[in-house]
Order: sequence, then structure tokens, then C-alpha cells
Amino acid sequence: MATHKLLLLPGDGIGTEVMAEVSRLIDWLNKAGIASFETEHGLVGGAAYDADKVAITDATMAKAQACDAVIFGAVGGPKWDAVPYDARPEAGLLRLRKDLALFANLRPAVCYPALASASSLKPEVVEGLDIMIVRELTGGVYFGEPKTITDLGGGQKRAIDTQIYDTYEIERIGRVAFDLARKRRNKVTSMEKRNVMKTGVLWNEVITQVHQREYKDVQLEHQLADSGGMNLVKWPKQFDVIVTDNLFGDMLSDIAAMLTGSLGMLPSASLGEVDSKTGKRKAMYEPVHGSAPDIAGKGMANPVAMLASFGMALRYSLEMGDLADKLDEAIAAVLAKGLRTADIKSDGSTVVSTSQMGEAIVQEL
Amino acid sequence: MATHKLLLLPGDGIGTEVMAEVSRLIDWLNKAGIASFETEHGLVGGAAYDADKVAITDATMAKAQACDAVIFGAVGGPKWDAVPYDARPEAGLLRLRKDLALFANLRPAVCYPALASASSLKPEVVEGLDIMIVRELTGGVYFGEPKTITDLGGGQKRAIDTQIYDTYEIERIGRVAFDLARKRRNKVTSMEKRNVMKTGVLWNEVITQVHQREYKDVQLEHQLADSGGMNLVKWPKQFDVIVTDNLFGDMLSDIAAMLTGSLGMLPSASLGEVDSKTGKRKAMYEPVHGSAPDIAGKGMANPVAMLASFGMALRYSLEMGDLADKLDEAIAAVLAKGLRTADIKSDGSTVVSTSQMGEAIVQEL
Ligand SMILES: CC(C)[C@H](C(=O)O)[C@@H](O)C(=O)O
Ligand SMILES: CC(C)[C@H](C(=O)O)[C@@H](O)C(=O)O
Repeated sequence: MATHKLLLLPGDGIGTEVMAEVSRLIDWLNKAGIASFETEHGLVGGAAYDADKVAITDATMAKAQACDAVIFGAVGGPKWDAVPYDARPEAGLLRLRKDLALFANLRPAVCYPALASASSLKPEVVEGLDIMIVRELTGGVYFGEPKTITDLGGGQKRAIDTQIYDTYEIERIGRVAFDLARKRRNKVTSMEKRNVMKTGVLWNEVITQVHQREYKDVQLEHQLADSGGMNLVKWPKQFDVIVTDNLFGDMLSDIAAMLTGSLGMLPSASLGEVDSKTGKRKAMYEPVHGSAPDIAGKGMANPVAMLASFGMALRYSLEMGDLADKLDEAIAAVLAKGLRTADIKSDGSTVVSTSQMGEAIVQEL
Repeated sequence: MATHKLLLLPGDGIGTEVMAEVSRLIDWLNKAGIASFETEHGLVGGAAYDADKVAITDATMAKAQACDAVIFGAVGGPKWDAVPYDARPEAGLLRLRKDLALFANLRPAVCYPALASASSLKPEVVEGLDIMIVRELTGGVYFGEPKTITDLGGGQKRAIDTQIYDTYEIERIGRVAFDLARKRRNKVTSMEKRNVMKTGVLWNEVITQVHQREYKDVQLEHQLADSGGMNLVKWPKQFDVIVTDNLFGDMLSDIAAMLTGSLGMLPSASLGEVDSKTGKRKAMYEPVHGSAPDIAGKGMANPVAMLASFGMALRYSLEMGDLADKLDEAIAAVLAKGLRTADIKSDGSTVVSTSQMGEAIVQEL
């Protein structure tokens, strides 16, 4: 049995609580002889700042480079509002994405049937919803230079952010989206603001070319990001795969996740390019929800998104698709039994803690 | 009776159809001796391109500078997808905003009681919703330089957009938001991405300072734009006034409008600074909906957003608040009678055309 090396980065807030359930699952898989994981642990975000005055250390980055997959919790919280910009919690996450070259962020927005009623949208609008947002993750306004604040004197400052996209960055994220669509409902919607942004013009042009050259069998549609956002709210089932840039992807994937009413349930994967020699790719898996400082430390957090993110790691990085399927089934079975963490409670359900939920899922497995 | 000079710019698609109802209303007001309007007409967007190969001519811009208020329909459509970037329909709208220095875009998102059921959200989430989005309109990534596409050779291009904000730009839009909040429910939520963008850092800092210095009586809250978008979908009634930058405002105001189920009903105002000598400000009024090429020319468009935009002109530019109130009442009365354009039809309502709706509102007045 191959041994897989995982780096666990719980981060801040509920990140540590939900990561504990991943550790529970890994321990059990190791003991039961179902898999062989070697785990290392590291600090990121506010936790790293408290220990080392940086959002992630070079030593932790080296571990991230060396492992088979990074499992990431969440970062941030009001405690670190005043730390220097370069050491803010989010800088740790952004460095991981950039240094590991994780350009493709896959964010499924799925409405779990048992949770359709938790959505603020009408049940008929979200029931059965299953869309995949493919967000470009290492370019755009997140990393472009100049990114500065300058003092102009006389009480005036000027802040600048720069959005940059090169052809190859758009091509490779486009291919990820088209490849995924082929395994789904064969439709890609590309979103940008070409009516206002030059990066939108290039985005539209390159996605169209990739489609023409390599993916004519997939249906391609373009929407402006603002009307795309509207359409997400109006009738999300019109979408299959949505491909968009880093900043629009940030906004649109959060909105899509919220539509489902299943925010505490949604995993994500951030993938690098496949190495032509080893056939492997760098990857990080993280829940869509954040560090939720308001409920941190109370044992209330929903561990499903974190466990499902580990499931995505099994599938995309560790060639254990069967085990990933079984994990998904175990999660569904536990929900079907009426077990719920507080965020998704409903009439007739049993409210359980983070660890009770994690334990129930492991037992079901 | 003072004579007011209006410039009507119907634009493209349903813009011309809904503007015809404004003309009907103006004619009637003039004939009935209730007001005295002088109107001029101009082309903008695709219509201007077809006639003059630009998105708006200098002559039309001169009229816009000279009038008391610009009444704007909508621009754009697939017909002009291939025109040069600088002459695309949207360039006409952007030039009006920039040259008239209309930095403050007011977008109310109101759920008309009769239309709550038209929303994709649950009635209890949107019933009674009344929020005001204050969007910065002349800065940010819409206008920052460099804004270029460069050929790098070898099949590679690089596109760049630049987001720039200076202190004074954030101060003045902040004041607009705080002033509005004082006349409403006294709460402002500022949205940016300070965890990723330097413009977000400055935005947060300046809004906080303006609040501390001048508006301590107003409740101020900061949200990251992505979680702000989530919160809009989850529980929009938590907001009163939202203040945000040009691009986030574009996304968030469209989403807020869609939440209400009343997209065809929502007006907007774009205002410049008050001239300290004349006490006047440049202003443009336009519906939130776009040119809707799919239904253009069919007499199906809902003229209410356009008429309500004219109502905002009466209120904010022409000192005819009483008449604006009467117009709002007439719109509500016609809806209460069950008259509906196709976009808002429901069981038991009478579906009418654009002109029938316009006529009914004028008759009600
Ligand atoms: C924490 C933050 C830097 C991050 C982002 O903006 O990308 C988060 O919102 C996300 O979507 O993963
Ligand atoms: C037409 C377009 C340029 C415009 C914008 O992006 O500002 C529109 O979406 C709007 O919100 O008024």
C-alpha cells in the first residue's frame, strides 16, 4: 500500500475544530489498514503570526512543496485586524496558492436535498442544483503589480491594484473548465466584464479560441459578470460549469455557495499543473466557509465541508476515488439519519457538535 | 413656472420603447400646465455608432453638459459586438459618467409588495426590503490607466486593467452614503476586499475616518465584498445603505436588484458634486435594467423603471418632490389595479404592453 504524505494546516477559528475531524478520520483509516497516511502539521494565518510574526514560515512552505496534498482549514479573524499588511492571515493562504502555482480553484455548489429548505431561495430554484465554479487563482488583481498605497501629501493618498492576465493563464484555466464540463453536462459559461475591462476582452477572446480549437463538442456561452451574478440568483440551474477570473470567482463562488443553503457542506480544490514527468500535480483542499470567529471554540462548527475537502483530495490527488465515494455516502447517510450541526438544523433533526458529527461519519464508514 | 431643460438619450433596445413613455408623460405635464419642460434628444450607444461611428458625439456631450438633467435609457446589444473597443455602446455611457463627473450612483433595491412573489427568494426574505446601494461611479478599474492589451509575441498577449482610488474620491462617496443613511435607517455598510486589495485598505481607512470626523451618529459596519455578497443573498434586510467601489457596486447592485424580483421597476440616479455657486449638480437618471435585446421591439418592456428614474430626476434635480410623490403613487395605484407588463405578470393580473402601462400611469396622474 502506497504511503501518502499530507500536510495539515488548520489555521484559525473553526479551522482547528474541523481539522480535528480530518485527523480522526485519517487515524481511523490508518488503523483499519484501509490507507497509509503520513501527516505533518503546520501553522498558517493568525496562528502562524502569533508564533512567528509571519502568515506562514518558509519551513512550512517547504513542507507544502514536498507533500502529496495540503489540507487547509481557514484563516483570519478580528484578532489580527491590526497586523502589518504583509503578515495578515490571508497572506499565508495567498502565498500557498502562488508558490504552489495552484491556478485552478474548483468550487462545486451543490444543494444537498436534505438542506434545500435552509436556502433563502425558493426550493424549486435550488433543489437539485449542481454547478461547478472554476476560478482562476494565481493571477488577476490578487497578485498584479503595482499594488501600492502612496502618500500624495496634503492629506491625500493614492491606492493602486493591478489586474493582469496573459494568454497562457486564460488558456490553462479554460482547459480545466472544458475538461470538467465533458464529465458533467457539457456546458461552460465564461464570465467577465469585456464591456469595461481589457482583461475581460482578452479573457473572452482566449476562451473562445480554446473552445474553437480543442473543445467544439462542449457548449460555450459568455455572460457579463454582473448579469451572470443576476442569473445565478434568478435561475442558477441554467449553469453547469462557470469559468471566471480570480476576483469575479471570489464573489460569484461565494454567492453560488450561499444559494445552496449548504455553505457548511461545500469543499473546494486548488490544483496546479500536471507535471509531465511524474504525472502528479500540486494540490490544496479547503472548505468554502471561512474561519467564522463568531462561533469558534464552541464546538458548533460543521465539519462536513472539511471532510468533503479531504474527500476531494482522495479523488484528485491520491487516486482513492472509491474511498472518496464511500466517504460521500457516509456523509449522506449521517445526514439522512437527521444528524445536524447547528448551522443546518431543521425541524425534527438532532443537533450535534462538531466532534459528534465527525465521529458519526467515521462510524458510518 | 421655471422651465427645465432635459436631454433624453433613449439609446438601444428597449431603451427607445421605455423612453417613449417618458416623452408621453412630459408632453402631458407640459400640456396640463403642471410643469414646463424643454426637451432635446440625442443618440448614444449602438444607435450613435450606427449614425456617427462613435458611442456619443461631442455635440450630444455638449447638450448633456448644458441641460438640467439627462434621462438615459439603455445601451448595447449583440449587433455591436464587433465594433472597435473605443466605440462600443458602453463607451457612450462611460463618457457621460466621466465627463459629467457623476461620481455617486444611487441604486435603490426595493421589493414592491405586489411583486414579492416574483423573486426567486422566499417571500419572508424579501418582503419589505428597502436598501440603497451607493456605488462610486467615476473611479476604480473602470477608468484607471494603464488599461491595455499588448502583444508579447509567440501567440501571447497581456491585458492590464488598473484600479486606482484617491482619498478624496472615497471621502466624497462616503459622505453621500452617510447623508442618505441619516434620512433612512441610519446605518451604512461599507464593502471592499481589504484582505487582498490595497484600494480596499485605503477605502476602509478613509470611510472610517469620515465616519469618525463627521458622522459619528450613523452606525457604520465594514464587510468584505465577498461575504457582503453572501449576506445580501442570505438576509438582505440586515442592510440599509451599502457604499462600495465602482466594480463591486456593479456586481452587488445588480444582485440586490434581482433579489427584489422587481428588476423592471428599479430606477437609479447618478449625481455629480454640488456647485458651490449655483447650488446645482449635474445628474443623469437611468433604469437599472439594460437594453434587453431579446425582447426589444416587441412592446413588452416594463416602462416603470424608466418612469421612476424620471421621478428621481423630479426629486433630486428639478425640485419637484411633490410631483415625484404623485408619480410614485400613480405607479403603485396602477400596479394595485393588477396591470402588469409580461416580466412581472402573475395569476389574476392583466398583461399589458409598454405603451398601455405608460398610458395607464399618465391617466392615473
Ligand atoms: C481569505 C481570502 C484571501 C480568500 C480570497 O479572497 O480568495 C477567500 O475569500 C477565498 O475565497 O478563498
Ligand atoms: C453597461 C455597463 C458599462 C454598466 C457598468 O458596468 O457600469 C452597467 O452594467 C451598469 O451597471 O450601469
